Amino acid sequence: MPNNLNNFFHPKSIAVIGASAHEGKVGNDIVRNLIKSFSGKIYPVNLKEKTVEGLQAYSSILNIASAVDLAVIVIPAQFVPQAVEECGEKKCQNIIIISVGFKEIGRAGEELEKQIAELVKKYGIRVLGPNCLGYISTNPKIDASFGRSFPKAGNIAFASQSGALGTAVLDMAQAQHLGFSYFVSMGNKLDINELDLLEYFYADKKTKVILMYLENIADGQRFMEIAKKVSQKKPIIILKAGKTEKGSRAVSSHTGSLAGAAEAYSAAFKQSGIIEAEYLENFFDFAEGFSLQKMPSGNKVAVVTNAGGPGVLVTDVLPQYGLELADLSPSIIKKLKANLPEAASVINPVDVLGDAKADRYGFALELLIKEKNIDAAIVVLTPQKMTEIKETAQTIGQISKKTKKPIILCFMGEAEIDKNYAVFKEYSLPQYNFPLQAVKVLGQMLECRKRQESGVEEAKGNQLAKDKKSRETAGKILEKSILTEVDSREIFSLFDFPLHRAALAEIKEEALVVAEKIGYPVALKVVSPDIVHKSEAGGVKLGVKNREELSQAIDEMKRGLSRSKPAPKIDGYLVGEMVKGLEVIIGMKRDPQFGPLIMLGLGGIYTEVFKDVTFRIAPFGLAEAKKMIKELKIYPLFSGARGQKPLDVNALARILVKLGDFSLLFESVKEIDFNPVMVKEDGAVIVDVRIIK
Amino acid sequence: MPNNLNNFFHPKSIAVIGASAHEGKVGNDIVRNLIKSFSGKIYPVNLKEKTVEGLQAYSSILNIASAVDLAVIVIPAQFVPQAVEECGEKKCQNIIIISVGFKEIGRAGEELEKQIAELVKKYGIRVLGPNCLGYISTNPKIDASFGRSFPKAGNIAFASQSGALGTAVLDMAQAQHLGFSYFVSMGNKLDINELDLLEYFYADKKTKVILMYLENIADGQRFMEIAKKVSQKKPIIILKAGKTEKGSRAVSSHTGSLAGAAEAYSAAFKQSGIIEAEYLENFFDFAEGFSLQKMPSGNKVAVVTNAGGPGVLVTDVLPQYGLELADLSPSIIKKLKANLPEAASVINPVDVLGDAKADRYGFALELLIKEKNIDAAIVVLTPQKMTEIKETAQTIGQISKKTKKPIILCFMGEAEIDKNYAVFKEYSLPQYNFPLQAVKVLGQMLECRKRQESGVEEAKGNQLAKDKKSRETAGKILEKSILTEVDSREIFSLFDFPLHRAALAEIKEEALVVAEKIGYPVALKVVSPDIVHKSEAGGVKLGVKNREELSQAIDEMKRGLSRSKPAPKIDGYLVGEMVKGLEVIIGMKRDPQFGPLIMLGLGGIYTEVFKDVTFRIAPFGLAEAKKMIKELKIYPLFSGARGQKPLDVNALARILVKLGDFSLLFESVKEIDFNPVMVKEDGAVIVDVRIIK
Repeated sequence: MPNNLNNFFHPKSIAVIGASAHEGKVGNDIVRNLIKSFSGKIYPVNLKEKTVEGLQAYSSILNIASAVDLAVIVIPAQFVPQAVEECGEKKCQNIIIISVGFKEIGRAGEELEKQIAELVKKYGIRVLGPNCLGYISTNPKIDASFGRSFPKAGNIAFASQSGALGTAVLDMAQAQHLGFSYFVSMGNKLDINELDLLEYFYADKKTKVILMYLENIADGQRFMEIAKKVSQKKPIIILKAGKTEKGSRAVSSHTGSLAGAAEAYSAAFKQSGIIEAEYLENFFDFAEGFSLQKMPSGNKVAVVTNAGGPGVLVTDVLPQYGLELADLSPSIIKKLKANLPEAASVINPVDVLGDAKADRYGFALELLIKEKNIDAAIVVLTPQKMTEIKETAQTIGQISKKTKKPIILCFMGEAEIDKNYAVFKEYSLPQYNFPLQAVKVLGQMLECRKRQESGVEEAKGNQLAKDKKSRETAGKILEKSILTEVDSREIFSLFDFPLHRAALAEIKEEALVVAEKIGYPVALKVVSPDIVHKSEAGGVKLGVKNREELSQAIDEMKRGLSRSKPAPKIDGYLVGEMVKGLEVIIGMKRDPQFGPLIMLGLGGIYTEVFKDVTFRIAPFGLAEAKKMIKELKIYPLFSGARGQKPLDVNALARILVKLGDFSLLFESVKEIDFNPVMVKEDGAVIVDVRIIK
Repeated sequence: MPNNLNNFFHPKSIAVIGASAHEGKVGNDIVRNLIKSFSGKIYPVNLKEKTVEGLQAYSSILNIASAVDLAVIVIPAQFVPQAVEECGEKKCQNIIIISVGFKEIGRAGEELEKQIAELVKKYGIRVLGPNCLGYISTNPKIDASFGRSFPKAGNIAFASQSGALGTAVLDMAQAQHLGFSYFVSMGNKLDINELDLLEYFYADKKTKVILMYLENIADGQRFMEIAKKVSQKKPIIILKAGKTEKGSRAVSSHTGSLAGAAEAYSAAFKQSGIIEAEYLENFFDFAEGFSLQKMPSGNKVAVVTNAGGPGVLVTDVLPQYGLELADLSPSIIKKLKANLPEAASVINPVDVLGDAKADRYGFALELLIKEKNIDAAIVVLTPQKMTEIKETAQTIGQISKKTKKPIILCFMGEAEIDKNYAVFKEYSLPQYNFPLQAVKVLGQMLECRKRQESGVEEAKGNQLAKDKKSRETAGKILEKSILTEVDSREIFSLFDFPLHRAALAEIKEEALVVAEKIGYPVALKVVSPDIVHKSEAGGVKLGVKNREELSQAIDEMKRGLSRSKPAPKIDGYLVGEMVKGLEVIIGMKRDPQFGPLIMLGLGGIYTEVFKDVTFRIAPFGLAEAKKMIKELKIYPLFSGARGQKPLDVNALARILVKLGDFSLLFESVKEIDFNPVMVKEDGAVIVDVRIIK
């Protein structure tokens, strides 16, 4: 059995439990939609009616003599468990529950869902919904939904957690002649969810692009696992709603305040090769581009336009999306000059002028798209007096069929342009009204191709897991009710994290000896189970230059702290080396959905203002860790900007991977801050560690 | 004469010079468009034809007996000067030159334009174009263009420097039933340009919103002056193409590398109260919102939706545009609860559920919009089974008519939604397919209202201009062929810029004395006319702690520098105090269009990576300077973040204003860097100054 949703999506007979003879009822819409679309057997089930829409009706699914492959249930919630039970008895193993009144209305509905879940288990049934629109398949043609319209057949599989949003997207898609393989409304996801659908669409030959609107994810780690596999073959485009949802208010670490649920989702998507649509418009635009065109193999773009200004508007946005105007070779320029009117611009963007008809567009585009150093073309058109909109699209379409490079239309306008959507789609040409849209899509396609080529990194085994002894020791320390910095340092040093040289001194005299060994200047920090925010409490003194200063600093610190009520217990002083380097912050926050979320970012006073941070879900390997470093805006400072030597990116990457592995081992740890970590030309040093359980 | 374009836009008779009897010719289109639209006299002028489109034709404008108020010229470029001359003789003082073949094709065309410019002066003629589409006025109805379509009448005045883009925008507007007062294609702007049109639209009673697509600006300072006045009364929305245009490559200062033409334009727009549309889609969306609705007086938004997911999508983007979900009062919640179905969400966003008809939307919206703490509403609709799209729009429209608060539609979909555009516009409801669009527009309207309320700052007189003696002295120093840091310091100290304490020492012994006076630690910098980049050359040493270190540092510096070939001439050493504070950079770059462009930004190693910079055109006053500071991402660090005391924003603002005034006085100065400027709790200190002529 390659995928157990195969039967679900390929029924030969469908029963509608709650079929209605009354127009306007959902139970009637579904029967009508099925009659219009489905070539198999349809069995309306209705307690009272003899026929529904001309079909013989049954009072129970159990009364149907033949086999039923799929049941669509659309009766009041409280009767649904009974209906599911009957489906089980009838050996109908695929069910869509359209009915509302479940989890979404609170406790009572949740209870009903639980009952159904047990039946599902008992009979080995697959269920879509409840509280969903149903599904639509375009080939084989099945409309098992109460949607308003049946989409064009095509290669986009679209699963939506919101039925309403699904309807809206289908409505937009219809206007633009976009084609779908499936539309699946997931509803409350009692059983079938995004994981199942990813697997199914992955194997489905009709599907080229997977589109998902999600409000949550059932199983984060498993989702990532599947998505990593799927995204290598088919682009997955996800729109995740609820980005502003605030995480838990009780944030105690620096990392905690910067890492929310939205960051965890974005990290998971990125690591899994998923294309995240920031806004609904991208979602839609991306779907069109990926559905219709090939991905570019490089970032050099040719622009052909019939007006200068709009050409400039395209050029203006290219660099924002990693794209560049291709330089044209002298021989191309010569050919363009020889064949275009004198006033034409023969450097990229190529302006074929306002009176250009289809043939002139065709000449220029054909010439350009054949060039080795051109990876893609954007064709801009404004509807001027002489402009042949339809013929130009057809000419471009012919050229597009003969090339492996993507060609994207930016025909600007609406009233005149939209009439020609059928032509655009006949030739598989994505069409966008605005330059930004066209450029964004092309940029995203390039990004996707690059990701597929570089592959997804396989997580290596957890290196720290082997060290049983250290695990045990660390586990014991972690049992303490309050962890001081000394405790935390001990735990991380067990696993050879590169901590800065420091030692605990219980009294001043000992501190002076320690400082001598470490070498001045030193950093002095109080160690106390009662003080959480050491800096604010006056428990930190940096850059202590010599013996006298240290002695004085300890006296002052002691005096200052003793004035607090109640006076904190002082375990001693941590005397550590002063480390120079680029200041970064590393942290971990355990995300309920995905597990340990590892953060890397700019440290120091600018951390909060620039939020130059990036995230990954553990586990991940060195390659992914290095990608994190490269994603930072401050990356140029690592690679030797301003005449400096490059910094030790590998050492920093090793800390990130290790912190991920560590966090997977010790699940009681909620948050970790390494702040600051100083990155040097050789090595990276963790100067301050904090564990929050 | 309140505005001399009045006659241009209100002709009673129009001659078309180059009128053609042949369909397909531009000279024919114009006559037809005039016949269709214009109620005054139309005189075709054609050498050969007796009639054109049923109208009597004349062989020359001079042969027309009656007066001609406006002439549209559409003959080959080389004959245009002659035609203009004849217009002059005929006392026709308003001309549109449609013809191409002028400045846009190079030297020969430029020559022709000059000839025309002289005639224009001689006869006091106003000219639109050449190389333009003409203009359209909806009231009085005049289509003096060869455009494809005549827009709906309305309150948007739209001037475009690209005819093609203008056509595209009109085409989009038509699909969305947007109404225009004027469409003016400016072409090469031989005479009539954005300045004239701003003035004209300002006075025009039919115009509520001014829309401009610009590729360049004729007179930067004058443009700002006019725009400041106009924007106080009517929103000006500008799309500026060519943002990636690279400035002069020969950039020698830090400021120069960060400040390009795009930054100058953006600064000028911001200071003048202009709304800059970053992309064409914003341009269009903003136009719709400003044209149809009122501006909100606060940032509290109510969202009414018939589906949860789409409501969340709106909520997700609100904070990005300075908007917030309004908190609903207990009494409102109670009323909503009492009247909406149980499953409805009665906290904002208010979810009236998928089966909501027009009345339920109406009930919720009417209740919400009356609330004191709600400033605006966004109504989200997805086209579900029971949804009444048209009736819902009508109901909302009725409510909108009774309130002063803006209401914006986000009806998601296309095929089903777009059918109802006429209804949306009948009730002046802006409608956007996507949440981001709706939110962005509302955010921009709030921004505009705030700007109008706070007013535009009047530039005070140049305070530095009075000090004649200092001006003379500074002028003399500026005559030097190469300015050392000592020279630059002298110039700025003449005008009491707060420079850090420092003194020139010609020899080591003198340096030791100076350092003693200033107090250790000190900064040591070589002074040499031959060294531009002191740090890179090894000519800077910071934090010199004591006498021995200074002595050693000077020796080493001398030795190091002497190894360069040719060895630089060393004038001495600048010994200065070490200043602590927040490190910023201030600079000036003279923009050819607007004059001195003043920059403020984050200093130090992060300057280039974060580009946290902001710009203004001089002159400006303290209020504007403080706005600059507030625009920085690092602003929280000024206002006392992380338990620090607030920094001296006033002192920093004074430097900015003064640098603007200074730059206006000394036009030979091309670029200035103050880098770093250290901002302290009391005062701000300029540590390094550089003048580039």
